[in-house]
Order: sequence, then structure tokens, then C-alpha cells
Amino acid sequence: MFSTQTYIERRNTLKRTVGSGLILIMGNEEAPMNYHDNTYRYRQDSNFLYYFGISLANLSAVIDVDSGEEIIFGDEFSMDDIIWVGPQPTLADQSRKVGVYRTEPYAKLASKLATASKVHFTPPYRYENKFKLSEWLNIPVSQLKEKASASLIKAIVAQRSYKSTEEIVQMEEAVNICREMHIAAMRETKAGRKEYEIAAIIHGKALELGGELAYPIIFSINGQTLHNHYHGNTMTEGRLALNDSGAENSMFYAGDITRTIPVSKKFTEQQKEIYNIVLQMELSAIEALKPGIQYKEIHLLANKILLEGLSDLGLVKGNVDEMLAEGVQGLFMPHGLGHAIGLDVHDMEDLGENYVGYAEGQQRSTQLGLKSLRLAKELEEGYVLTVEPGLYFIPELIDKWQSEKKFTNFVNYDKLAQYKDFGGVRIEDNCLITADGHQILGKPIPKTIDEVEALKN
Amino acid sequence: MFSTQTYIERRNTLKRTVGSGLILIMGNEEAPMNYHDNTYRYRQDSNFLYYFGISLANLSAVIDVDSGEEIIFGDEFSMDDIIWVGPQPTLADQSRKVGVYRTEPYAKLASKLATASKVHFTPPYRYENKFKLSEWLNIPVSQLKEKASASLIKAIVAQRSYKSTEEIVQMEEAVNICREMHIAAMRETKAGRKEYEIAAIIHGKALELGGELAYPIIFSINGQTLHNHYHGNTMTEGRLALNDSGAENSMFYAGDITRTIPVSKKFTEQQKEIYNIVLQMELSAIEALKPGIQYKEIHLLANKILLEGLSDLGLVKGNVDEMLAEGVQGLFMPHGLGHAIGLDVHDMEDLGENYVGYAEGQQRSTQLGLKSLRLAKELEEGYVLTVEPGLYFIPELIDKWQSEKKFTNFVNYDKLAQYKDFGGVRIEDNCLITADGHQILGKPIPKTIDEVEALKN
Repeated sequence: MFSTQTYIERRNTLKRTVGSGLILIMGNEEAPMNYHDNTYRYRQDSNFLYYFGISLANLSAVIDVDSGEEIIFGDEFSMDDIIWVGPQPTLADQSRKVGVYRTEPYAKLASKLATASKVHFTPPYRYENKFKLSEWLNIPVSQLKEKASASLIKAIVAQRSYKSTEEIVQMEEAVNICREMHIAAMRETKAGRKEYEIAAIIHGKALELGGELAYPIIFSINGQTLHNHYHGNTMTEGRLALNDSGAENSMFYAGDITRTIPVSKKFTEQQKEIYNIVLQMELSAIEALKPGIQYKEIHLLANKILLEGLSDLGLVKGNVDEMLAEGVQGLFMPHGLGHAIGLDVHDMEDLGENYVGYAEGQQRSTQLGLKSLRLAKELEEGYVLTVEPGLYFIPELIDKWQSEKKFTNFVNYDKLAQYKDFGGVRIEDNCLITADGHQILGKPIPKTIDEVEALKN
Repeated sequence: MFSTQTYIERRNTLKRTVGSGLILIMGNEEAPMNYHDNTYRYRQDSNFLYYFGISLANLSAVIDVDSGEEIIFGDEFSMDDIIWVGPQPTLADQSRKVGVYRTEPYAKLASKLATASKVHFTPPYRYENKFKLSEWLNIPVSQLKEKASASLIKAIVAQRSYKSTEEIVQMEEAVNICREMHIAAMRETKAGRKEYEIAAIIHGKALELGGELAYPIIFSINGQTLHNHYHGNTMTEGRLALNDSGAENSMFYAGDITRTIPVSKKFTEQQKEIYNIVLQMELSAIEALKPGIQYKEIHLLANKILLEGLSDLGLVKGNVDEMLAEGVQGLFMPHGLGHAIGLDVHDMEDLGENYVGYAEGQQRSTQLGLKSLRLAKELEEGYVLTVEPGLYFIPELIDKWQSEKKFTNFVNYDKLAQYKDFGGVRIEDNCLITADGHQILGKPIPKTIDEVEALKN
């Protein structure tokens, strides 16, 4: 936990920005898996963690901006709880550590909200919170998202987007856990092994280092499937394994790292050609990071390198800028270059992607690839973001575009047919925007062909 | 997946038992962790798995008992889905494999339900399903549990309680994964290591063998806390580590195993005395398992051995049967001896514990320990259940009883004070009730003091 003062200051800033009304920050309940009492691992809501720091189920908090009053609502433990889950510090004690000196039973929250003239809330993403909010505020569940407080959302984004020095310490710790996960995966990836065996090692490493998974592991020889959570394949010589896996550390800050590993001891020549295009995209994109540049520009810069590389290989032909404008690259990288990261791997995605990643009035593209770009706006000092270019050969998408005769003037579909069993490559690091540029978080993680191959021996 | 015929027969049996009306079996959605799209690992509902076999989010199914019609409601994949999650067999193809030949878009389910004169449903445990059901059937969320169909619940319990030969094959596989988890934990438990390092090995082993955790790991030097999911302690010489961890296999059948391990290479004499009481409780309870005996009787048998053992050590005094009747044992084992296990670690707990574990009219005790007994009724061939006696020294509970002068005629509180830092011991196996007795599932897992110590060297 950070210092008491940190939490007090965060809430004071929030009060000043929001200006008036009652701010409600709902914590998360336990999440049932296959019956009420068999739950997934507990994960507190990130806004609650940011302003109130306590990782405990069944809490919610209010901040009365007008009176300055702050209350955490929750129930104290009973003797039955102590038998089943052990002795716990009281809620009152835990609240004091984050500078909140008033606690109330959870059941009293509804009447507190009823007395407020204006309740600011964020869009709930868990159904139990949707349901509670709907009952308390008498708003149909289907309208909760639109009735959420834009001023609260903007105020939170205006705080959480800028990572403090003490947050960066946590984020570097998270990335360093990721580093161990990825190095272990590189060492253990071998023909004949199942993907889930390596996923097990990756997950185990996160836990062993006191962390948890920040998001479900992607470890697949079918890297062309962007969010592939299937781990049932046996790895075979000559394939690439794409490993997109990250930990959150004990303070719940996320790392999000991708590396692509040859199943064999060495990359093939074809793999090296594609891999080095992606590596060049990543290095150039990172090099360009600094305050004042739009991240959309960096996305396009990386995609230009992609098209140039494919042009050199004869997979596309024609004017690169023209292809870029028309969106040919969507066939090869149908996702965005990156996103904000912090307490959430897609930071603050619960608040709405456009609030986090787009400036007011900045339009989101509908082009394949760009439409999935979560962060497009001008970068500022203190932002932390991922840079994660990829290059994929997605047979179903190639077939679709070819059958639609899409971009036949640019795409060499005949030659492309030779790559249909290639899979995909993605390389990803997490970067802080500094006053005069950028910094890659954490200790370096093997990334060049030589570095990756060296771990395979 | 089991054979098509298996699923067809299960549904036919269900139809015959329920008799009339429309049976609704809701599948599970993805469960959001810290925002909508960052989800926990997917776990399908166990009733859906039992009758429809498909482990895929956003499905629900109906069985029209009167017409015999069976429909799975869900949406086919789009090209966007293929890009993000990969090519998938169509829902229609997957449904055919479980003998269902009609699928409909999910949006059509509401109107199907609206035309039914009677909809049988089970009590929903996930909020999104509560919410959907409430909307569809116009029943307030708070009344869904009482409005659930008792005839459907009883019909499901009447099927799922009896494990078929093909289910037992799966359950033995699950226990054999547990075995590797526990052996690894015994080998790696050492002074100086963090609990979470061992929890990581346990979890990793489940994943490496193609399974998943069936429930959150309990691995703790504070075994006296029954459901202790905190793994932050450093293990120290002379403590006991209690490991209650189990896998579900790739067919989602659960194993639930507990062993207690000395952190040092050997048990101390005091630990041996307590450990051997629990071992005797477990072995005697298993020995007594057979069709026709009430599980409550076996719970009491184990507790009698507990009291006899503590009497020999001078921790309690007086007539054992009298103590048993009055509930003195609740101080030392404040939980039940075991529960049904199958697709759920507490099998069918979503349907209601009493439906699963108690005969009609059989009263549940309010005594500490017995009140937590999930399975009390007469055993029958085909049941699978856990046998998990424990013996704990819970300082807060001892202090409470002593201050209340509870059972001062039976409990030697002065001597008990010497055990307040002991922790707890639990030993657990999974057993099938056979025609003439019982069978412990899976390969034997080290259990005696000698067997456990042998792995520590």
C-alpha cells in the first residue's frame, strides 16, 4: 500500500476536479465461478484501489465533495468469518491506513445515496454492481452507462493517466516479473511439448514471484489469432510460438509483454525476415515516443515500416503512403499499436476507451486496424503505454479479402499464399513518456533474433 | 466430450423425471475481472456441461418436455471473432456432437420462454444470469431462488449424484493430477520459502497436466484457518503447512485433496500425535463407507475418534459419547466431514446444499461443525464424496469459548493453551461408494507420517 498521504491527496485532487456532488466508488465483490461460494481469485476494482487502496471484497466508498466527508461502507468480520478466513484487521483500522476515518455498515450506503442531490458514478462492468446501482439510483441497468458521470470519468482519467514515481516503481516490478515469465518460456519452448505446459510455467512464474496474471495468457503456435487462449496444441518444429503474457504485481500494477519464439532452436530465414520487420516497427515506434506527438502518428509510422518491409518481400506492391492511407496494412496488422497501461492492462478501459485514448473531438477511424487503436491522442509526460506491433497471416482474412478482390492492385495474393501457414509475430514492451522522450520499463527482455536464439540452447 | 448418445440419454432421463414444461439450462458468460473485456478463465456452468457438453460462453438451452424439442441458443462467429479468437467450429456443428439439431440466435430465447406455460429453471448464481432471468420471466431478482423449480432441481440431483463409469474415469484423472500437485508441494515445502512459491508450483502442476484449479488453493502455515487463501507467509521450521488443493481435469471433473506437511524434514512428536488422530479419523471414516449408512453417522464416528484422541492427550476429559452429543468437538473440527464432488468441487451446490446432501425431512443440525456438514443423508452406490477430517487449534475460538466458560467440565483449557500456536491438520481423499463398500479414487497419495517424511528428503 502507498502512504496514507498519497491516498488523501488523490482524493483531494478528485474533489477539486469534480467540484460538487457525491462521488461513489464501488468496490468489487467476489466473483462466483461455478456456484456462489466457489470464486475466482479476488480482484478489487482499480478505481477503488487508486483512491482507497483496500483490496477486500464487499466495500464501496463515497466522497461528499461539498462537505468533504469520506466514508467507506462495509461490514466487520464475525467469529464465523475468523474461523473460515482467519483473523483480520478491522475495516476501521484498514480505512485509517488510507486516511478514511469513518466507516459504516454496507446496508447504510443506499440511504446515503438517497440523500444526495447528485451522485457521480463510473460505468459498472460487473453485473452485481450494475444491479446494486440500478436499485439504489432507480436507473434501468441498460441506461447505467449513459447516465455515468462524464465529469467523474474525466477527472479520474486526468489523474490516473499520469503515473507518479512511486507508481513507476511498481510498474517496473511488474515488468520484471514478466521478464522472468518470458525468459522461462523461451527456455522451455520445444517441439513435442504442449502449449499448456509452457502456459503453466508462465503462470507459475508470475505466482512464484508474488504476482498474478494481469490478463489471460496468449501462448500459441497460432499467433495469427490475436487473442488466442487455446493452449491445447502440440508444438512442432518450424512453427513460431507467440507469447503475450503479463503479470500484475502485489500492488496490482500490470505489465503486458509479448515475445515470439521459434519452436525449433533457430528461426528459419522466412521467419527472420518477418520477425525483423516487426522488430524494426517496434524499435522505431519506441524511438519516436515523446511528449507532444500523437500516438496515432506512431501507429501509422509502424504500419508504414510494415508495408515497406512487405514491399521488399514482394507481398505488396505500389506506393506505400497510398497503401497506408487506404488501409492495406489492416490485412497484416488488424489491431492497434498499443494502449495505456497501469492498474489495468488496458488502463481505465472500464471508463470508456475514448475517454482514455482520444482527445475531445478526435475521431476514431473505422479502418481495420486503426479502429482497434485504443490510444490515439497526443502523448504527455507520465503516460505509460504499450508498443506492440505485429504482423500476421490470417488465412480466413486473406481468403475473404481475395474473394472480395480487395486491394488487388496492392496485394500480391499469389505470393501471399505461401505464407498462409506462417502464423504471426508480435513484439511488445511497456514505455513511460518522459519529459524529453521515453523510457522502456523494467530490465531488458531478450528481443533480437540472437538474444532469443541464445536462450534456446 | 462424452459420446453423443450420453448427452441424449441424460436429457431423455431429465425429461422423463420432470414430466412437463420447458426446462431452461443457462450457460455461463465470460466473467469480467477489472473491466468488461479482461476476463477470468472461462468456466461453463456444470448443469450445462452435464446435459449439453459445450464449453463456450453465451449459450443457453431449452428442453421442451412436452414436444421433446431441444434447442441451443447462441450466436455464430463473425469474421471479427475469427481474427481475435480464431476459426471455430460452428455452433450448429458443436451442437450436433451432443445430439442437438436445432440452434437459434440468442436473442430468440426470450420469446421462446414467453410462449411457455411453465419454465423450469435452477437458482442462478451469477449476476448476469440472475438479471437475464429476471427480465425474461418478469421475476424480481430477490425472488429467483424461491421461484426456481424444485422438480427440476430434484431431477438433476437424482441424475448427477450417481457417477457413471465414464465419469469415474474422469474423476480418477482429476485426482491423479491432484496427486502430482501434492507430491510436488511435499517436496518443495521448506523453511524460508514463501507460501505463494509453493502455491505457484501447485497451480502450475495442475495447468501443466492439462487441468485447472477446481477451487482456490489453501496452502498455509495457518491451517487452523479453514479457508485461508492468504499465501504471504514465510514458512518456518517447526510449523505445519496445510495443503488443500485440487484440480479439475480437461472434462471439468474436480478432485479435492488435502495433505498436511511438516515445514521441517520431520514431524515433531506433538505434531505426530495430532496428525495420527486425524489419520485415524480419515482411515476409519473411509473404512465405514458403504451404501445404506448415513454420512452423518460417519461424520460422528470420525468426531468420536477425535474426542478419544484428545482425551488420551488430556485435552478433553469425561464421557466421549456425552461430549459428542453436546458438541464439544466443534471447538476442534468446526466443519463437516465431507461433501459430494463431481463436476463441482461441492457438487451441485448451486442447486442448494440441502437438496444434494439431505434427505427430505432430514433436519440440519445447528451445532458448530455439524451445521456445516454438506452431506448427511444415506449413501448410495455411485455417489462420490470427500472424506476430510481435521483437527485445529483456533486461538480466537478457544479464547471465546473459554471466556464464555463453555464446556469447562469437558475441555482442559489450561493444557489447550500449549497448543494455541499449533495450527491445524486436515487429511482428505475422494471416495466412490460401490455396491459393497467404497473405493478411494486415483493412485494413492502419500498420507502416513513415514510416506510424507520420505518425500521431504
